Amino acid sequence: MAAMSNPPDGTQHRRSGRRPGRSSTRETILAAARRQFAQHGYDRASLRAIAGDAGVDQKLIAHFFGSKQKLFVAAIGLPLNPAEMLPAVLAGERGQLGRRLAQLLFSVLDDPAFHQRLTGVVRAAAAEPEVARMMREFLTREVFAPTAEILGCDDALLRANLVGSQIVGLVMARFVVELEPLASAPPQVVADAVASTLQRYLVEPLGLGEA
Amino acid sequence: MAAMSNPPDGTQHRRSGRRPGRSSTRETILAAARRQFAQHGYDRASLRAIAGDAGVDQKLIAHFFGSKQKLFVAAIGLPLNPAEMLPAVLAGERGQLGRRLAQLLFSVLDDPAFHQRLTGVVRAAAAEPEVARMMREFLTREVFAPTAEILGCDDALLRANLVGSQIVGLVMARFVVELEPLASAPPQVVADAVASTLQRYLVEPLGLGEA
Repeated sequence: MAAMSNPPDGTQHRRSGRRPGRSSTRETILAAARRQFAQHGYDRASLRAIAGDAGVDQKLIAHFFGSKQKLFVAAIGLPLNPAEMLPAVLAGERGQLGRRLAQLLFSVLDDPAFHQRLTGVVRAAAAEPEVARMMREFLTREVFAPTAEILGCDDALLRANLVGSQIVGLVMARFVVELEPLASAPPQVVADAVASTLQRYLVEPLGLGEA
Repeated sequence: MAAMSNPPDGTQHRRSGRRPGRSSTRETILAAARRQFAQHGYDRASLRAIAGDAGVDQKLIAHFFGSKQKLFVAAIGLPLNPAEMLPAVLAGERGQLGRRLAQLLFSVLDDPAFHQRLTGVVRAAAAEPEVARMMREFLTREVFAPTAEILGCDDALLRANLVGSQIVGLVMARFVVELEPLASAPPQVVADAVASTLQRYLVEPLGLGEA
């Protein structure tokens, strides 16, 4: 565990004054992670292979990032970890699920730094098949499957996919294509407008076979 | 009108046997249109400037493509013209608007050639700001504004944007990121699942200010 002598939250240095060695080790791991996730997808990339690619001890990755899930979120540049948002959204009253998710989304999306990074990920997923694949595998394993387990119904994975479709569509419409007036609408207006959609996708009848 | 001596629907030649001169004039116009739309956007690009760029008479563009709207659809490679779909969707009973739109979308999306081209446009809009701009201007002028006029309510443009967000999100989720089970679900299942969402965005209360 000698590699852990530089704790990542050590605060002896100014914010911009990280020791170069530590910073570059972190960047080396992130670059190796991006290569391995792009080549093998989220499911099949292993911390062992990423450590080998980066030329570091696997324990150092756990030390810096905690888990494969968290390493992925850092490597891909996601501004938040959707897997970590789940408990706050899915706990509590089912009748307010869609509203809680919409509120949480648009409270964070209001931050320009946040939506710029999220937009970057959506752009990359649209343009590069290997990014689309790693996002699909990450979302399925870490977000949709746990959500479906909590929802507990037969079509829960489809429901989680539909929620994902509306969220990625909002990112495209509001931040990438910048449709007006949607792009300039206050976050609360957008949250209000989509809350019922998310609620319906998550827990209300989907109307399958009603045509 | 001498330039019109080769009618585009002349059928003397086999399907694959167009005279090279005609075919290349059409391609020259399309290439010029793509340049002009990318540089100036949909609103400010003019048929006159496109004709100048292509080195052809402006009447030839009208002859081949009919209108700026139709030229844009051909130049960008859209597999259908959403402006031409509007009357079929917006005419008829308001209570079935969302279902008619969902049915129409998923009847055409079931054609692989269709969704491959649509996916190409969505990818390009995500990756290239000038494609995003021309799509935004085209959709706003030719699809959202006419829809809003027919809907007639104050927030009609926002409603049209929300419909657009769900449709582009479905294209991303089903055809680009290929979330499962959404990507493999029969078109009718997806149409059923989103019909109520589209219906709500178009004509039902949006729930603004209900938080």
